[in-house]
Formats: sequence, structure tokens, C-alpha cells
Amino acid sequence: MSSTEVVNVRTKIHGYKLDQNLAPTLLQPALESEESHRKVLGTVRCLIADLCQQHNGGHPGSAMGMAALGIALYKYTMRYSPLNPSFFNRDRLVLSNGHTCLWQYIFMHLVGFPAMSLEQLKTYHSAQRDSICPGHPEIQLAGIEVTTGPLGQGVANTVGLAIASKQLGATYNRPGHHLVDNMTWCVVGDGCLQEGVAIEAIQLAGHWRLDNLAILYDNNGVTCSGTVDVATSEDINARMAACGWHVVDILDGDTNVGAIVQALEQARENKHQPSFVNIRTTIGVDTNLQGQNKAHGTPLGAEGVRHLKQAYGMDPKQEFFVPPSVYAFFQDVIPKGKKQEATSEQILSAYALKFPELAKEFTMRIRGQLSKHWLDFIPPKEELSKKKTPTRISAGRIVAALGKGLSSLVLMTCDLQPATNMSWDNCTTFQHPEHKTSCETMMGNYTGRYLQCGIREHAMAAIANGLAALGPGTVIPLTSAFFQFYSYAIAGVRMGALQGLQAIHLATHDSIAIGHDGPTHQPVELPALFRAMPNLLYVRPCDEEETCGAFMVAFEAERTPTMISLSRHPLVQYPEHSDREGVKRGAYVFIEEEEADVTLIGVGAEMVFAVEARSKLIELGIKSRVISFPCQRLFEGQSRDYKESVMQYSKRKPVVVIEAFVVNGWERYADAGYSMRTFGKSLPPEDEIYGFFGFTVDEITTKVRQLLNEVAEVGIEFLRGNFRDLNGGAMSHGINIY
Amino acid sequence: MSSTEVVNVRTKIHGYKLDQNLAPTLLQPALESEESHRKVLGTVRCLIADLCQQHNGGHPGSAMGMAALGIALYKYTMRYSPLNPSFFNRDRLVLSNGHTCLWQYIFMHLVGFPAMSLEQLKTYHSAQRDSICPGHPEIQLAGIEVTTGPLGQGVANTVGLAIASKQLGATYNRPGHHLVDNMTWCVVGDGCLQEGVAIEAIQLAGHWRLDNLAILYDNNGVTCSGTVDVATSEDINARMAACGWHVVDILDGDTNVGAIVQALEQARENKHQPSFVNIRTTIGVDTNLQGQNKAHGTPLGAEGVRHLKQAYGMDPKQEFFVPPSVYAFFQDVIPKGKKQEATSEQILSAYALKFPELAKEFTMRIRGQLSKHWLDFIPPKEELSKKKTPTRISAGRIVAALGKGLSSLVLMTCDLQPATNMSWDNCTTFQHPEHKTSCETMMGNYTGRYLQCGIREHAMAAIANGLAALGPGTVIPLTSAFFQFYSYAIAGVRMGALQGLQAIHLATHDSIAIGHDGPTHQPVELPALFRAMPNLLYVRPCDEEETCGAFMVAFEAERTPTMISLSRHPLVQYPEHSDREGVKRGAYVFIEEEEADVTLIGVGAEMVFAVEARSKLIELGIKSRVISFPCQRLFEGQSRDYKESVMQYSKRKPVVVIEAFVVNGWERYADAGYSMRTFGKSLPPEDEIYGFFGFTVDEITTKVRQLLNEVAEVGIEFLRGNFRDLNGGAMSHGINIY
Repeated sequence: MSSTEVVNVRTKIHGYKLDQNLAPTLLQPALESEESHRKVLGTVRCLIADLCQQHNGGHPGSAMGMAALGIALYKYTMRYSPLNPSFFNRDRLVLSNGHTCLWQYIFMHLVGFPAMSLEQLKTYHSAQRDSICPGHPEIQLAGIEVTTGPLGQGVANTVGLAIASKQLGATYNRPGHHLVDNMTWCVVGDGCLQEGVAIEAIQLAGHWRLDNLAILYDNNGVTCSGTVDVATSEDINARMAACGWHVVDILDGDTNVGAIVQALEQARENKHQPSFVNIRTTIGVDTNLQGQNKAHGTPLGAEGVRHLKQAYGMDPKQEFFVPPSVYAFFQDVIPKGKKQEATSEQILSAYALKFPELAKEFTMRIRGQLSKHWLDFIPPKEELSKKKTPTRISAGRIVAALGKGLSSLVLMTCDLQPATNMSWDNCTTFQHPEHKTSCETMMGNYTGRYLQCGIREHAMAAIANGLAALGPGTVIPLTSAFFQFYSYAIAGVRMGALQGLQAIHLATHDSIAIGHDGPTHQPVELPALFRAMPNLLYVRPCDEEETCGAFMVAFEAERTPTMISLSRHPLVQYPEHSDREGVKRGAYVFIEEEEADVTLIGVGAEMVFAVEARSKLIELGIKSRVISFPCQRLFEGQSRDYKESVMQYSKRKPVVVIEAFVVNGWERYADAGYSMRTFGKSLPPEDEIYGFFGFTVDEITTKVRQLLNEVAEVGIEFLRGNFRDLNGGAMSHGINIY
Repeated sequence: MSSTEVVNVRTKIHGYKLDQNLAPTLLQPALESEESHRKVLGTVRCLIADLCQQHNGGHPGSAMGMAALGIALYKYTMRYSPLNPSFFNRDRLVLSNGHTCLWQYIFMHLVGFPAMSLEQLKTYHSAQRDSICPGHPEIQLAGIEVTTGPLGQGVANTVGLAIASKQLGATYNRPGHHLVDNMTWCVVGDGCLQEGVAIEAIQLAGHWRLDNLAILYDNNGVTCSGTVDVATSEDINARMAACGWHVVDILDGDTNVGAIVQALEQARENKHQPSFVNIRTTIGVDTNLQGQNKAHGTPLGAEGVRHLKQAYGMDPKQEFFVPPSVYAFFQDVIPKGKKQEATSEQILSAYALKFPELAKEFTMRIRGQLSKHWLDFIPPKEELSKKKTPTRISAGRIVAALGKGLSSLVLMTCDLQPATNMSWDNCTTFQHPEHKTSCETMMGNYTGRYLQCGIREHAMAAIANGLAALGPGTVIPLTSAFFQFYSYAIAGVRMGALQGLQAIHLATHDSIAIGHDGPTHQPVELPALFRAMPNLLYVRPCDEEETCGAFMVAFEAERTPTMISLSRHPLVQYPEHSDREGVKRGAYVFIEEEEADVTLIGVGAEMVFAVEARSKLIELGIKSRVISFPCQRLFEGQSRDYKESVMQYSKRKPVVVIEAFVVNGWERYADAGYSMRTFGKSLPPEDEIYGFFGFTVDEITTKVRQLLNEVAEVGIEFLRGNFRDLNGGAMSHGINIY
């Protein structure tokens, strides 16, 4: 961006007929004077400078450049209430370029969020452990909708928030009664628009014509390493338009509050599509680092701070100074917020008179109470299949019941529905009601709770976080895809775990047994990650009863996402052994045996090997007990006594885990593992491929017997620090070197 | 796509002036008759039908639709030699929609790749263990450039292949001597164009104006779940044009071989930008499943196969039938390939006469021999820093030397260069020579070996795979980013490991100690994945000497990618203890102690806690030895004797690992861990945040002493199956529930 463009005060409007469709009053609320804007801009920028300078850290440049946008949102456009940040029909604001969080903290302070005192602002980049001003915004703080930081995530979260609002509005709004009609704003920098997860979400938002969503692009043309044109040449406006977005250009975003307000109001009034407001700004505007990439993450230095204050006519000796006139500038925000709350309440009261049942449901929905009825839809044990069934089919049955009955449930898929098998009868697809699809079954409307995400796993997971973030239990998102393709979505799954957002990830095709799709589709090492990820429950059920248990775990974990790991191939059912209550404890005794010589851990699709090996071992005169172990994290939470009752280490008999994944992490529980060490192979499903990799009852039994012989000879102590990979020899294949 | 469009035989050209710039002969090689094309189309499609029908599996629909494209590429356009598939200046073909691999196998058979016999074709979806026709194409087979399957990866791989060719050409070609001028073709379906990794790579290819690259879009409008418009409404041609691509539309791609050939030749001749050829096809064309999503992954059934054969005038009783006329149709391919090889050799001979030194270097380069000189650039121990140094700085020094000296090295960054600190003096950025950037330091040309990838981690990793796939050792890609952001790139890293492609990933900022950026930037669980991933070496060095060792490991592992995990903060150097040769063995004795009471495992940035705890324990009368353990996978490859000499389990003293990651996987080696259980927190770097999470020498020492007391009381056996999380209590924070 050249400096001539910066001073060229004009607003360029693309593709949207402003005058004909919109009431001028809506587009241009009465603005305060230019002079007062300049005062606020200066105050905010000097405050940023001081706050970064004090501890010599933080991200000043973009936050400064976005000050005019801050005024537009927090003073004029955004519907919110500082004294009640969770009032339901508020606009949602996501700061996807989370490193600019100081911008948000400062505006929250200026408008009067009670927790955000000036003293709190000063804890930014401090050592204060109870600071509410971390280096990236965190969901724990009222007024922050989602935690951001990893670029691009916030864009997809915003799409999720917008869908949730849209879906609620379509379900409960009635003519003249707009219970839910909020906007969803997403502030982004260059980085967010380059990340694949964001672009996937942008495509979906355009497809779904989410008119309650706007991306506000802080286009300062500078990233951490240099100018953005070092790695990008695309025509971003054309790209957004190609994806179905309304595009507005603002060329003087450093100062022109009025133009930004106009664009934001236009976005709110646009009832056709999401909006992209391309706001040209200057990183570190008016400072010694103006326009330089150094401004991204470097404080200005004492001299630079002094220089900036002088430029804005402020006293360089005053630190962290907010003139009374600036507080006064924002003093209408709290009353306006209260009024918006009151309006919202009036709308609900009027609605309740006219639609009492709906109002009751709506209230339960937004309080998360409806979601608590999930247990009604989990089938009792006696109704379960007794013949061999893939756990993806078992899960599909549960989802079919849940989907029909639990109106807070939203199901997401990444194109593989015929294989993942998740849906329910007559489920409505979430689509713009006027969108025509070539396959008619997929047309729908905004009440739909079935989200077809295309082939975009990462966006799916990150959108799920946005759905869940609308309010605890208001929407329960279920995602579904092949297990291995969650490797595309890990950053999204992690952000859900970090934020305590309840999402349920249905990961099907979870073993090498899927067969011919080959090593690119066969998970081997991925479970090690999900078992290690804090606040994520990775549950791998072995049959339909345990699948019920997995869903129960997932619904009970209201501040924790769950991944349920499901087989493609049919699994033997164990009605005599399997137990949903056992799943809740992470591991439990599946088949007990007094005086056992060995404990076998069976897991998920490979439980059959543990059970059949037990029978075979009996023939050989060896007694074994079988443990089912669907979730390590849940087991860790059990009492020491319970753990010992299950594992019985004190009996000094070896423990062997059998699972067709890499064994990493199982060493905590077992002395030996029958597992994978390499990637998989394209071979027919089940027996053929299991057999190729040594997963046969005969081979497992032989190795277990050898282990027992060895233990008999040298003692169980020998196994400490000497974990045995029983399937180590047979598994090298192809190109795997290490 | 409606059927009227299918029969509408015309080619629509976007944005490129065909007649003025291109020689007509180049654009339209002499084509065989329409009749012969129809014969081949029928044969290929019936063969696909038979091959899927025989084992009732596979992906027939898209492969059938792409038959005309196959003729265009394999008969007319692609430069390759079936009898010498690795001849260097060949065109590269990547089948990004790898599930259509039968298409590729069949054309390889028809043109005469010796290994691809008709008998081999029949092993598709069979139980034959030595089949070369897996369910997705695999790099092991000559004629397959990269393994594909997970959608979108192939697009980024192609960009890597095109960059590698471009870079070699710019470096070694001389006027009239075009050693390297091949094309790079990428076949994609709808899924590939929706995946973020592909879109990121598409943006980069447009930015770099890679005119030696074309995406050939099998636009059949149908995905696994239904029609593509269920989840996509974008104007794909407009999006590609916005990203700087030349766009060609072909509306009758089922049959119009000539139009496709024309478009491909045009792509080859376009010297301005990459090309996107949008080929409308019909999934399962001419079959009973034509145009239906069921055609994606469902065989036609016996009746369907019969119907198809009749439609093409073939005998339904003949299975796997290739008429002699079809073999004859392709019989010019082998001689043409030989001629192209010969031409290539002549060009090199002429070049060698005129530029003998360059020719020698080029030959060494393409044979991977130049890369073997890496050892010259690893500094000897005596030259290393003795003062506290972050390992990212140590690695940066090594990269600076390697980059200057080793011309096969290509360095990639994701915007964070000022923080990751990887580059070298006067390094040239890879850019189109006419591309102007606002920050002048980043202009460059195609000889550049410094790739600025923007904020696109997933594309970076997948492009690195393409760079490495040009030929073993011809290009050694180094990627760099913050460790946590490799969570965006996992699917790419995995594909490199699966294919045995040597890439070196420099993952900086690898601990909670990075500080204020907070939990979104602080890795905690990610190492558990990389330690579990087959054929990936995850190496975490503790100082500059070990960092040298990590690079040595990475360069020696010629068929294995390596991730080097580096600290942001300065680390104590241990010249008396640390040892690059020890790194190669995965773990080694750092500080020995006769009659030790406990063994402490120190890792990477947290080595300091092990060493200082040892000193503190001495004060308490407790003797400890310290192990450095930079790489689990390398240690696993050591002899049992070596392992015992390092770990000394037989001495029956406890082993404690100290690392600020989750402990999963360390249970194999240790009895107890001082580790993390939750996500991190935004606090000042190093001492403050380490302290918050209990990482202080005092606390560690206290817990180790307690453990020793307990062991003294109850015996070491008690620790079996009772792994102790020594830092378990102090680490819950914020929203983490489980």
C-alpha cells in the first residue's frame, strides 16, 4: 500500500447496490466529530505503545492499525452489553488475528467491561498469574467468544457461530418476532486469509450464503517476515467474490471511522450473502516503525513511544493515560447495551405470549437444557445387535435416534456419508432455502441440522468449535470423517479441547482392517496423539454396547470434546462381557479368571484377538483374563484401588496389550504389546491385512506363550524397562526404514 | 452437469491469446482418428469395469470419466519413456485424486511399462501381497511420482516438483541448452480443490508463476456423497484466475481428446503462469451408474458390466480384453520415449562440451551426489558456542553454513523467519524474476533456494515432499515453523514419512517456555505423535553440539524425514557432556555415576533441570546419573547391550524422565515422569512459566527424593504398572477438565 492510497479518503463499493436497498439511517448512524475520533485513535495507539513497552513484549503494530475499526465496532455498530456480555442475541466478535488482542482488551476497557480495568490492562505480558489479558484472547473471559491464536481458526469458528445463529433463527423466529438476528464479525489479518482452514470455511460460508457474517480484513500488507507480496499475489477481492461474498473496499482504514461504520452496517443489512470488508490500514501507523514488519512484534522503544505521543498531542510523561473525554466518548455504550438487552427480552416476552411452547423450547435450548435429554436416545442393552456389526453402524444407529430426537444436535460430514454412515431419516440438510442442488435429496433450509462440509476436514472441526461456542449445550456438534483424515483437522480438534468446547468427533475406518485403501488411509500412529491431547477423550469401543458407553461419555463431558473411534468392518458383539458403565471408567474387566497367568488388554476392533487368544491359550493350559480398555484418559481418573482391581499388577503376572496401532503410550499399562510398528498396506480388509501384519490368533498366542516362558525363567522383574514388542519382527514392509 | 452440456462439443478458452503466441503445430499434434479414440475409450472403460467387478471393489466412476484425458496425456502430450521411467527431463504426472489409480495403471499397461502386465492389473483389489496395483498409487513403482490418497496432498506435491524443476532449470540451463524444461501435470477431482492444503499450494503456484505446472481438473460434478453443489457454489474458474492461473474450459471431456490435447499443449507453451484445465466429464460415463455418486466407489455389477460392453460394441463374454488395435494405437509411445531420452542425452552432451564444470555439477546434483557433502558444513565441536544459546540459533548457524555451501538445499519458511532464525547471508529468494515486492530484500529469481511460503504450513510440508520427490538427494528441503504449527501440517509430514522422502523439518519454539504467546502456541502433546509416527525421526537436542548431531542424523537418513525440535530460549551448553555421536544412537550417558540411586533422563530444553537436579540431589546425599535422550526411534534401533549400558535397568534403580511435554511414550523407558498434563499458559518465558507448572529444581528434587524413599520402602517392583506422574498435582489450570 502506498502512502498516497492511505490519504486518499474514499470508499469503494463492490457489487452491492447501496442506495436502492438500504435505508440511509441504517447505513450511517450519527457519528461523533472527526476530532473526537482522532482523540480516541491517539489514546488507543499510545496505550498500546505503553502496554507493549512496559514489559518489552507484545504485538503492537496491527493493533494500532485497527484502532478505527475498533471505534466502528465497539462504539457504533456492534450489538453487545458490557455489563451482560453473554446476553444471547448479541453480535459475536471473533478476533482471528489473536495476536492483536491488546486492541480488544483496550476497547473492552474503554466501553466499560467491569473486569477489564486499567490495572488489568497493565498485566498484559506481565508475570501476573491471574491476568485476564493473555498474549492471545481466551474464551474464559466474558466478552471473548473464542480463544484464538493459531491463524485461520477464528474464521472457521466464526462460520460456526453464524451457522448456529442462523439455524436457531430459522427454527424459532416467527414473522415480526426475531429472537435471533445477531451478526457475527470476524477480524482477520493477512495470515488468516492464507491458511487453508480459513479458505475452506470461506468457501462454505459463501455456499451457505451466511448473510449474518462479515470478515473484517485488517489489510496492512505486512506480515512477520516482510510485505505480504513476498508470498501472495492473488486478487483477494476477486477470490472472495468468486466464493460468493459481497466485497467492500475501504482505502483509508487508519482514520475513516465513518466509512468503516457504513461498510459494517451494509454487511448487516445485506440479506443475500456474507460480506468481506477489505480495510486498508498501516501497521504501526504514525510510529517510527510505521509500515515495517518490525512493527508486528516489537515494542517501539522509549523514544518511539515519546514520538508517538507527541504526534497525537499527548504528554509523553503520562503513561497509560486515558483522557476523560475518551471515556466520555464511549459512555453511551453501556446504556445502549442495556437497551438492546431490554429489547431482546421484550421480543422474547411477546413471543412467549404468542408461541408459549416454542418459547419454552427456545429458552431450554439457549440454556443448554435440551441437550441434557440425550440419555433418552441411547438404546438399552437388550435392544442392541447380537450379530457382527461394525461400530460405525452401531454409532450410526445411535446418531439416527439422537438426530431425530435431540434438536440441539448438529451433524457434520465431510462427503463420506455413504461410508461413515451417519445421518437420520428425513433429516434436513442445512442449505440456503433457495439453493438448488443437482441431487435433490440434499436441498434443504436453514433449520437443517445436517451440515455437508464437502471435503474440508479442518474447516469442519473448527466450525464445530464455533457451533459449540454459541453457548454451552445450545448446539452439540457431531463431526464425522475417516479417522485418518482427522490428521487434517488436528489443530481444530486441539482448539476445541483447549477451550473446553463439547464436540463429538465420529472417526470411522479406524484400523488397518479397512483394507485396500492402503497405508494412506490406515491409521497407525494417530491414536497416540489423541490419547496424549489434554482434555480430549479418545474412546475406542469394541462393540455396540461399548459404543453406547462412548456416546454417554461424550455427552456427560460437557466441557470436553470426545473422539469416538469406530471400525469399518463388522465386529463380534460381546453382550455377556461388554458394559457401557465400564466404558465410563476407561477400562474394566471383560473376562475375569482366577489365578490367571497373564492379563490381555483388548481394544476396539482388535478385542476379538484378545478374546480368541484367551480361548486358544486355555487349550494350551494357560489361563488369561481379558481387560477392555476403551479410554486411557478416563482410566487415569479412577482411584488407585479401582485401577489395581482391573490391572492386578500386584499379582506379578505380565500384561499384554493387543492393538493394531503403534504401542506408544500403552507402556504405562502393559509389559508387552502386540502392535504395529510401520505404516499399513493395500490388501483386502480384515483377515488378509490383519494376517499380513501378524494379527492372527495363532501368532498372538505363540508370542504370548513365549513371553510367559521367558518370565517363568527370568522373573517378571526382567520386564521393567524392557517392554516387549511381541510383533516386532514381522512388520517391516516397503519403504519404511526406521 | 446436465446431459446437454456433455454433448455440446466445444472448447472454451479463457484469458489466453492462443493464435498469437503459439505455434499451431505445437498445439495440435497429428491426432489419430475419432474411431480409434472411441475404441481406446471403450477398452479402458470396460477394463475398469472388469477390474472392479472381479473382486467387487475399487473406484470405477472417475477413472472411466478420465479416459479421454488419459489418451491425451499418455499418447500425445506427456514426455516420458516407459522403458526408462526415471529419465530426468521427463514430465512429472501426479494423480492427486489417487483413488482413480486404475486409470493410471491401465494406461501404464497399454503404453508398455514392462512391470505393468495384464496379470498385474488383475491384482488390483486382490489379496496378492506383491501386487504393484494398490488401492492408491505408491511411489515405489517406477512411473508413479508420488504416493497419493489423502486429497489435496498431490496438488502441493506437484507444486514442489515444479519448483524443483524450475530451480534446476534456472540454475543450469543456458541459452540453447535446456537441460531441464519438463512439465508437471497434476490430475485432480473435486475433493482436491476443496482441501485447504491444495488451495494454499495453488495460491503459491500462482504467486510464483510456475508456468511448468498444470492442474487437470476432472470436473464430473459428483463426489462420494452426492453432487458437488451440495457443498460448493464457488466459481472455480474465477477463483483460479484470481490466484493468477491461466484457465481453460473443456466442456466435452468425456470424448474430445483433441480439445484436451490442445489445452495441454497450450499449458506447456504458456510461459507466464500455471494453467488450470477445467475438464467436464461424467462419472461412470456410459454405464448404468452414469452421473451418480454411487459410481464413485461401487462396481457396476455383472449386468452393468455387460451393458457397458455392449454399448461399446465389445463382447460381454470377454473379460479383461484389450484388442490388438488398442495396443497398436499406443505402439509409438516407446520409440517416442526413447527418442526423447536420446534428445535429452544429446542436450547434456552438447552442454558438457561447452560448460564442463556446470555439467559435472548438474550430473552430481541429479544423482543426489552433491547432497552427500553435507558433512563439510557441520561445525566441529571446538567451534561451538559455550555460552547460553537457543537451539534455534544453533540450528540457524548450521543452516547458514549449509545453505551457502550445499546447492541442493532448499529452505522453506512460513513467515516466521525473524523468529525461527533460518536463512543465510545473501541468500536468494525463489521468486519470478519480474516479481516486485514492496520490501526489496525479498525479490529474487528462480535460482533462489529460499522459499517464502506465507502463512501456509500444510502446503509447505506437502510442497517439501514434492521437492524431495524430484529425485533422491537432488533437492533436500528444509522446512521451518513454530513447532505447534506443524499441527497444521501433520498430514504432509506423514506422507513424507510414508514415502521415505528426505525432508528436514526445523520446528522451533518447542516448549511452554516460549511464554506469553500462551497455550495456543505451546506444544504439549504434539511430540507424542511425532515420536509415534513410523519412519520419522523426531530429534530434540539439548545444546549446540546435540543440534549438530541432529543435523547429521537428518542427512544420514536418506529415506526418512527428520523433525528437529528447537528451543526459543537460550540453553546452557554442555561441552563436557553432550556428544553428537550420542545423538545418533538416540540416547547416551550424559553424566555417569557409579552406584547411582536414580537415573534422570534429560531431554532438549529441559536438560538443565536434570543436570541441576543431579547437583541438588548430591547435596542431599543422593547419587544420580543423567541420560540425554534426544530421539526415541534411534534408540530403539540400538542393540540390547547398548540399551542396557545406557539405562542400567538391571541395577534396579528408578528412572525418571524430565520433560515439559505430556509423558506418553516415555513409560517405555522410565518409571516416573516429571511432565505436563494440561495445556500451557500465557506467562513470561522460561523461569516464570516453568515455575508455574512446577518445573523448578527444588520441586523436581523433592519429588525425586520422595520417589526414592517410597522405592526404598516398598521395592522397585512396586513401580511396575504404577508409573508415577511426579508433577501430577500442580498442573491443572483454567478450563482443562480431563
